[in-house]
Amino acid sequence: MTAARLIELWRGGLRESSHLGHVVISDADGVVEAWGNPGTVIFPRSSCKMIQALPLVESGAADAVGLGPEHLALACGSHNGARSHVDRVEAWLSGLGFEDEDLRCGAHMPRDPQEYRRLLCSDASPCQVHNNCSGKHAGFLTLKRHINAGPEYVELDHPVQRAVRRAFEEVTGETAAGWGLDGCSAPNFACTVEGLARAMAGFARPRSGKRGAAQRRLFEAMAAHPDLVAGEGRACTDLMRAMRGRAVVKTGAEAVFVAIVPERGLGVALKVSDGGTRGAEAAITALMVHLGLLSAEDPVVAKYLTGPIRNWRGFETGEMRCASGFPN
Amino acid sequence: MTAARLIELWRGGLRESSHLGHVVISDADGVVEAWGNPGTVIFPRSSCKMIQALPLVESGAADAVGLGPEHLALACGSHNGARSHVDRVEAWLSGLGFEDEDLRCGAHMPRDPQEYRRLLCSDASPCQVHNNCSGKHAGFLTLKRHINAGPEYVELDHPVQRAVRRAFEEVTGETAAGWGLDGCSAPNFACTVEGLARAMAGFARPRSGKRGAAQRRLFEAMAAHPDLVAGEGRACTDLMRAMRGRAVVKTGAEAVFVAIVPERGLGVALKVSDGGTRGAEAAITALMVHLGLLSAEDPVVAKYLTGPIRNWRGFETGEMRCASGFPN
Repeated sequence: MTAARLIELWRGGLRESSHLGHVVISDADGVVEAWGNPGTVIFPRSSCKMIQALPLVESGAADAVGLGPEHLALACGSHNGARSHVDRVEAWLSGLGFEDEDLRCGAHMPRDPQEYRRLLCSDASPCQVHNNCSGKHAGFLTLKRHINAGPEYVELDHPVQRAVRRAFEEVTGETAAGWGLDGCSAPNFACTVEGLARAMAGFARPRSGKRGAAQRRLFEAMAAHPDLVAGEGRACTDLMRAMRGRAVVKTGAEAVFVAIVPERGLGVALKVSDGGTRGAEAAITALMVHLGLLSAEDPVVAKYLTGPIRNWRGFETGEMRCASGFPN
Repeated sequence: MTAARLIELWRGGLRESSHLGHVVISDADGVVEAWGNPGTVIFPRSSCKMIQALPLVESGAADAVGLGPEHLALACGSHNGARSHVDRVEAWLSGLGFEDEDLRCGAHMPRDPQEYRRLLCSDASPCQVHNNCSGKHAGFLTLKRHINAGPEYVELDHPVQRAVRRAFEEVTGETAAGWGLDGCSAPNFACTVEGLARAMAGFARPRSGKRGAAQRRLFEAMAAHPDLVAGEGRACTDLMRAMRGRAVVKTGAEAVFVAIVPERGLGVALKVSDGGTRGAEAAITALMVHLGLLSAEDPVVAKYLTGPIRNWRGFETGEMRCASGFPN
């Protein structure tokens, strides 16, 4: 099965561009609905940060140092590097005796406009805490410290990453099809779109026991702090705010998106084949409407899917549309 | 015929993302080589600026006010809004008695890092001359003035746009399949990928007469001033510099790219279906190697196609590859 046409961009009454991809809606028992090929192997990238955070909670490391919902939301998030994000991660690290140099994520300029402007206009360089993955890495460092492991916590055979891989394979129900180095230098394990959706369904209907408690706690942290999972103006934050805690959505690089929908016991995973973020954001928005979590009239649906595309003078130049058959 | 797989992104030994599209290499007589569907209707967007500039030259408007190669390169370009671009367009406009308010392209922040920083850090707003299309619009204003037409030169029925449409249909050999409003508010006419490649072949082997002279003059202006067609660090500029005037390449929004290759009498046009610029840049680079205009060892080929993809710590995370069968 090849990729399905998901999202189209129209201009002047003609289809100008299209985004193809693979989508799975799963419950605990398996595929409920799918478009494209559920067996396509993908890298979840940052969309699986809540899976990478499971060992942090299940090991007792999070409780040992008193991490709260804000810390866990940051550990599962890809933040904008706004002061509200950077200050919290810095306080988390310093509270454990860590410094910026202990991180292994690398530094990049923040997306947050104010912080970006502050750094650029003062000729300051970004720190590693500005990296959108610094919350995940603070979680890795917290676990590393708890288990007295070495400093190179992103190496494939480091106890932290071995624990991440174990959790990843357990919740996806698959042996990792491979692994790649992520933008933040952590290993990213490969799975099928179906496996990723199945993992999200597990977070939606946590079983009893330590695993289920950790899944529920991470979902609740993300749902309670949409601003710490991404940031102002970002799709994850906008969509979660509009859904008022009923569902969690999380993006990953190269156009991956997942959703956790407890009230229906469903998990969602999608990959736009070309890696185009706008297509993945439009597709997850359409799926949240499809699953009854957003009204088609919600402003957030206009922002990411149905609203007109305007040019530099504000004139309407075109629109996005769901392709025929997706999601209805 | 559906889109062909052109460019792939690999990570950890697995294919993570793919760009599909349509490519035509044409000579004056028609298709020489093609991938995907040559009959796919596309919007050339800014890739057809040298076509939109034909009436400026053919009408005598350019000579009437003494436009040189730099002006014509700017008219055919999508510049970075660097001072070297903005100062030239401002001088061009003021020399004709026009002001920024006479433009109809709208304003946006420039791509050029120095000018971007200057505006952002001084709380200044960009002017319309910063718009990447301001050179094309200066050309429209020059023609409008020459034929004593009204100020709303981007309206579909304005004499300037009627002349552009006539030239577009003549060089593509097609009646426009439709039109859309471009980002700069000018009409953008639709054609097939084959028609756009045929038009570029016309620029590669200009016939005698006014049309041919204009085509040769616009090619030579672009080839002589790669820096004015785009800017430092941009694919059009980098590739043209590396080809040392042997060919002209020009990009358009939503992943369109064209090339003009006089020494072989060939025109190239491509559209990456998903609108992903990185795919179009990689594909045109591969085609320039395929046509013998670039050595596979040229650093510019590594920059846009074969070089490793690195993360924030400089570690190699993956690579781009041409899909099997493209272009060889």
